[in-house]
Amino acid sequence: MSDTVHRRVVLASRPEGIPQAAHFRIEQAPMPHPAAGQVLIRNRFLSVEPAMRGWVNAAANYSKPVDIGEVMRSFAAGEIVESNHPDWAVGTAVTGMFGWQEYAAVDPSVIDYRIEESDLPLSASLGVLGINGITAHYGLLKIGEPRAGQTVLVSTGAGAVGSIVGQIARLQGCKTIAITGSDTKRTLCLNRFGYDHAVDYKHDDFAAQLAQTCKDGIDIYFDNTAGAISDAVMPYLNVGARVIICGTASVASWDPLPLGPRIERHLLVKRARMQGFVILDHKDHYPAARADLARWVREGLIRFEEDILDGIEQAPDAIAGLYRGENLGKRLIRVG
Amino acid sequence: MSDTVHRRVVLASRPEGIPQAAHFRIEQAPMPHPAAGQVLIRNRFLSVEPAMRGWVNAAANYSKPVDIGEVMRSFAAGEIVESNHPDWAVGTAVTGMFGWQEYAAVDPSVIDYRIEESDLPLSASLGVLGINGITAHYGLLKIGEPRAGQTVLVSTGAGAVGSIVGQIARLQGCKTIAITGSDTKRTLCLNRFGYDHAVDYKHDDFAAQLAQTCKDGIDIYFDNTAGAISDAVMPYLNVGARVIICGTASVASWDPLPLGPRIERHLLVKRARMQGFVILDHKDHYPAARADLARWVREGLIRFEEDILDGIEQAPDAIAGLYRGENLGKRLIRVG
Repeated sequence: MSDTVHRRVVLASRPEGIPQAAHFRIEQAPMPHPAAGQVLIRNRFLSVEPAMRGWVNAAANYSKPVDIGEVMRSFAAGEIVESNHPDWAVGTAVTGMFGWQEYAAVDPSVIDYRIEESDLPLSASLGVLGINGITAHYGLLKIGEPRAGQTVLVSTGAGAVGSIVGQIARLQGCKTIAITGSDTKRTLCLNRFGYDHAVDYKHDDFAAQLAQTCKDGIDIYFDNTAGAISDAVMPYLNVGARVIICGTASVASWDPLPLGPRIERHLLVKRARMQGFVILDHKDHYPAARADLARWVREGLIRFEEDILDGIEQAPDAIAGLYRGENLGKRLIRVG
Repeated sequence: MSDTVHRRVVLASRPEGIPQAAHFRIEQAPMPHPAAGQVLIRNRFLSVEPAMRGWVNAAANYSKPVDIGEVMRSFAAGEIVESNHPDWAVGTAVTGMFGWQEYAAVDPSVIDYRIEESDLPLSASLGVLGINGITAHYGLLKIGEPRAGQTVLVSTGAGAVGSIVGQIARLQGCKTIAITGSDTKRTLCLNRFGYDHAVDYKHDDFAAQLAQTCKDGIDIYFDNTAGAISDAVMPYLNVGARVIICGTASVASWDPLPLGPRIERHLLVKRARMQGFVILDHKDHYPAARADLARWVREGLIRFEEDILDGIEQAPDAIAGLYRGENLGKRLIRVG
């Protein structure tokens, strides 16, 4: 790789449903140069999120869809290698929406965070200390409002967000239950993430296992999947339960709207609350969440897993791989 | 009617879905006598609520089902005609869960309210000043959290609860939209309850009318119907919308759970909140709600309609009639 070009991943065609490798194209492009007031960032890790499905689909979403031919939108972590801005020194480690590319010339407003946890791996700034950990922190604590002694159930309990939700819930004195999709992940949930119970939704006796595990009901359902998994969970809501809608990973397409059992009666009879959120709305919550998460990680109270793929050429298939459930922990692409 | 017997309506068989006249039986019974500490109440008005469906169905609900042969549970208003309790004088007007019967001997704990609005009709204590008005007040103000300039949509906009919701919303400076089921009710919504718009869900062009009326989106959906009406409304939720689940009148049976379009994606993308409630949980809110409602009624700021059927023999078919949509306003049975 010369200094005059770099590589980037652009959206080649618009997917319906889950974006596959063929929807992206890796291309060489001229090395970007920072304009006045801008900085040049050398990306080291590119993030891979289930939410990226929504960022490339044409259907109504919370952000403008990535255009065809545009660099794939993503969080990334790296360091400033050239600066035309007095507040941002060369060498500063940062995260932000730098995209699936090796270098990015950006306004400092695109930077989310000046990384201060130099004792922790840079990659953690995209996972447990980044959008995943912050999502878990905000969703569980601010929307879920857990109280000691309550039961918290997490779908995708071993996932990048779910595994943090389970551990924060445990720190609040809650009983925790994971739903996950393999024996390996079940073991991870129990032995590494400290869940009290873990249930495999792919097992034939999922319904019976769930019934046994949830026999005292659940007070908080942190939902990363929607779909059939949620349908199985809803009957176990306790009076006053909170359902936190964080993601809809188990539903392949929302256009047209898929059918499912109606939930209004559950919500009414159980006086339950179901609430969606998008963490990007809550930037004022990031510093407090990061401080808590970094402290918990340092104290060994929260553990995290990473699934690091090497090389930008791994990026195009990486989202589809998430939906195939092949990762254990936060998926990242190492590019530098 | 002699002084030694009275009439009452008992549950004759357990309905599936909406209770019909044949599920009840009118019988004569010995006149009840108040035990020590009890009072005897002469009922004047018996209440008829959509929620009664849930009270007689066997499926899981928020209260124990009425037993076969038991007097039908209901709110009623009347006066104390005999008292064995020093705090409760003969002649006191009261409301409470006195049941579908002419007389009730009860402990004072069964009394909800000592009626103080002697300038307002006794019947109002069961509707606008009773459970319906209080339900509207709590649901809209405490769960919906309306702010001036927002748009509030009410399903069953002309109903005993809905009509009050619309008017309270208007008093908060909100734009109000009713969904209702006839031209007569539409006119009532616009001319008497002061809605800005009213849409008839039975019209062939309901979808187009709704699209036109909701073109700027809705911030609060006060849902008394669930089902297909809610399905039509959900796409118009604004970011941050609140959906208040108060009733499910349009769904005939919940066993097995009927299917509908999944709503998780709406809630996620719109960062929306959907919340059920049962007003019986919130008795501490009743006095404040009654005070507001009585003031608004006296000042002419809230209007109400009543649909009064004469005679206890009208009771057995009265719930089914609600679900047929035949009433204009709060349905009551006059028994004294």
